[in-house]
Formats: sequence, structure tokens, C-alpha cells
Amino acid sequence: MNISHIEHIGIAVKSIEEALPYYENVLGLKCYAVEEVKDQMVKTAFLKVGETKIELLEPTSEESPIAKFLENQGTGIHHIAFAVEDGVANALAECKSQKVRLIDFEPRKGAEGLNIAFLNPKSTQGVLTELCEQ
Amino acid sequence: MNISHIEHIGIAVKSIEEALPYYENVLGLKCYAVEEVKDQMVKTAFLKVGETKIELLEPTSEESPIAKFLENQGTGIHHIAFAVEDGVANALAECKSQKVRLIDFEPRKGAEGLNIAFLNPKSTQGVLTELCEQ
Repeated sequence: MNISHIEHIGIAVKSIEEALPYYENVLGLKCYAVEEVKDQMVKTAFLKVGETKIELLEPTSEESPIAKFLENQGTGIHHIAFAVEDGVANALAECKSQKVRLIDFEPRKGAEGLNIAFLNPKSTQGVLTELCEQ
Repeated sequence: MNISHIEHIGIAVKSIEEALPYYENVLGLKCYAVEEVKDQMVKTAFLKVGETKIELLEPTSEESPIAKFLENQGTGIHHIAFAVEDGVANALAECKSQKVRLIDFEPRKGAEGLNIAFLNPKSTQGVLTELCEQ
């Protein structure tokens, strides 16, 4: 797999509105977009830091995977997303050939219109891992 | 605060030896250094991904903060480290003036000889956050 950089870090928060003052006023980052991802039942806020983004994730339903994460573990880092250079479909094929367990067997559309797929933390040393292509 | 990029992502693992094949063979990253940080009772392995590093953290003692993290939460992302441009001491002074709770009140030496300091997750939306200067 050919990873160019960390595309984003996903952080679960109870409320984007309550979280943003820390990211903007203390860390000095700037929120440039807020977007709802309906099939994941989350509202997302993006802040750029170098070549990477911080993606704040607020659940919009109790059924959201982020609501369940917050219930089990509280606010904190939820996943890491790597930008792959040869496309997500090729990266997934490579993962399959190496017996890596997948959550998404095919690329799907994520926030910001990116093609994305998640790998299963059972195969990634416990880290929920997303692959992205631009 | 003036953050240039994410310096590294710290990931707690039970064994660097067991974790590295995933990072090297599946993700295609390369471990370029392994180092022991005695006062934190950890062995660290570094892999570069774009402008950021992944820092794998393996406890060398049951008293290590990483051993406690693994016991409570299992393997996974432990902290995020931001590179600050005007030095860690200035960043800490700014945090204090904004009533951000600190773990380290002064910069100390971390892995790779960097000046570092940790902020208290109670003030950082639940994310253990490190500031670094090169």
C-alpha cells in the first residue's frame, strides 16, 4: 500500500459547538467546514493542521456509531484515516490478499465526497483505520 | 498558539515486535528508529507518514502509564502531538492564561530529544494532547 500522509484524525465529541472553542481559541486552528453525514448519523467539523485535518464527530442520533463510542469510551480519538495513492479499491484488494479483516468491502463515499473504506480494528492493532482517496 | 503540523500520533501496543508487521507489510510504512524512554517506562518505535510520525508505545514495566492504558482500554490511539512554532514554554504560558489544565508545567525531554509537554485531557475534550518543539 502506498500511503502519502494522514488525511485526518477523527475525534468523537458530544457537541461540536462546545468542542470548537478549545480547538480554535487554545490550539489556534480554524474550522473551515461543518457537514452532516446522514448514513453515519453524525455532524462533522473540519479543521486543517498542516497536511492533515481534524474531523470532529458529533452524533445526530442515539443509533450513531459515534453515540455508542461516546457511551463506551467517552470523548476522544475515534479513528485515523490514511490517504492512499493508488486508490481505495486497490488498497482493499491488497488488504484482502494479506488476510486483513475489513469493515467496508468496497469503497463508499465519506465526508467531503472522498472515497473511503474502514478496516476492522481486529486486524489493525486495535486502531479503527480508514483509507481515503481524493 | 501556532501549530505547524501533527508531529506524531502515539499508539499503545502490547508488543512492538507483534505490531510492526501490520504497519510495515500492510500499510507499507517503515520503522526508522526504536528507542527506550526510561522515565515513561516505554519502548517506542517510529514510522514516518508524510510530515507526521506514528509512535508505537510498548510498556517496559507494569507501572508504565502505557501498561495502565492497555489494561483499561486495550491497544489503540493513546495521544496526539502537535508541533508548535514558538516553543513549548510559550505555548504552555498561553494555555495557563486560558485556564487549560496541564500535566507538565514546564517543557521536558521526550523521545527523539524533543522538548515536550502534555496537556490534561480534562481541558482538551478528552484527548491526551502533547505539544512538541524541534
